[in-house]
Amino acid sequence: MPTLIHGAIVIRDSTNICEYLDDVFPENQIRPSDPVTRAEVRYWTKAVDEEVHPACAAITFMSSHRHTIGRLGPEGLRKFLESTPPFSVTAHWHEQKKAYVRDGFNAVGAPEKVELYDRYLHKMEDALEKTKWLASNDFTFADIAMAPYVMRLDMLSMQGMWDGNRLPRVEGWLGKIKTRPTFKQTFLDWMPEQLTEDLKSNDAKSWPEVEKILDTAA
Amino acid sequence: MPTLIHGAIVIRDSTNICEYLDDVFPENQIRPSDPVTRAEVRYWTKAVDEEVHPACAAITFMSSHRHTIGRLGPEGLRKFLESTPPFSVTAHWHEQKKAYVRDGFNAVGAPEKVELYDRYLHKMEDALEKTKWLASNDFTFADIAMAPYVMRLDMLSMQGMWDGNRLPRVEGWLGKIKTRPTFKQTFLDWMPEQLTEDLKSNDAKSWPEVEKILDTAA
Repeated sequence: MPTLIHGAIVIRDSTNICEYLDDVFPENQIRPSDPVTRAEVRYWTKAVDEEVHPACAAITFMSSHRHTIGRLGPEGLRKFLESTPPFSVTAHWHEQKKAYVRDGFNAVGAPEKVELYDRYLHKMEDALEKTKWLASNDFTFADIAMAPYVMRLDMLSMQGMWDGNRLPRVEGWLGKIKTRPTFKQTFLDWMPEQLTEDLKSNDAKSWPEVEKILDTAA
Repeated sequence: MPTLIHGAIVIRDSTNICEYLDDVFPENQIRPSDPVTRAEVRYWTKAVDEEVHPACAAITFMSSHRHTIGRLGPEGLRKFLESTPPFSVTAHWHEQKKAYVRDGFNAVGAPEKVELYDRYLHKMEDALEKTKWLASNDFTFADIAMAPYVMRLDMLSMQGMWDGNRLPRVEGWLGKIKTRPTFKQTFLDWMPEQLTEDLKSNDAKSWPEVEKILDTAA
């Protein structure tokens, strides 16, 4: 809930922040004015908050962070894992993160996370058949909400989930996202070089495992 | 996303339906007009969608439904459990539901569900210290979102989570909810008598286990 820090109001959570910004600055509207299209936008932001975000965290840990934090040594790794709060990304994040770091894509529930992501990429493909952007012919908050989650796969060298004519509309959508004027500043500039490199190199190793999960599910 | 069924637009999910209704019928506003208070309302609806709803489903199965569906006999029970889709209330609902039905409050993760609920009841108590209703001095969509989840505990004979001066403001809030003109119609009238009776009698058996979890956590 909004909290006061040094007398300033703090609004938490990306979705609530976007809804708030649109309430306060209607001149730069990211929500469409038509109520049905608004509901369509909220379908996507709910999906991000409830399903895609936890799946993204799982996949990032299983494919990349587990290798990076392996550099901490056994004691450093133990301390890092113990510091995870029980209620974070999901209700059981403390235990889940341990399993993802220990077992990678062999962790219990790993295939389901990849399949969930794949299902949403397919939903995007279907939506983009009807409209230019996810919820309408205009760029909206739905595109803003999904962009970081598709970009994460891109940074994790998992473009195989859509390229090679697998999901051509998703590929085109991501290309358009990358040409937007704020893209470089919001997605690339703030990333520490080492993190960008880790995501890319660690994960290229994991792609065969991910591809196998997708092929088995298909 | 909005679907067309027999030419009609279908908006799914309670939170999206409430936001939609408020967009379409602003004359009966359930969202406050102030953007900060709106953000406060959305804090509660997000909590319901992401945390309270899965915990509610878990507690209902662990405390009541497991006894009711036990009447189906072994083969009926097996069929019932197998029919659960994997992605429903949470990403692993199929497996979780089996564990809740089999093990009740001894299931892995059971105490965390009770504690999560208890934490939100405490957050309600704190919020109600500042304002008459959850997000403001007016009745809003935040109260509408939380009402069924506190009412469920009430129907499950778990009033011990707030009464006896444990959380007096939550107790008062629920009392006010029950006097609202639409309460009987929306909460009571549609419930099959057998279900109301099952929730009440099955769960009275579970209350000692729930109380033990709360005492251990305190």
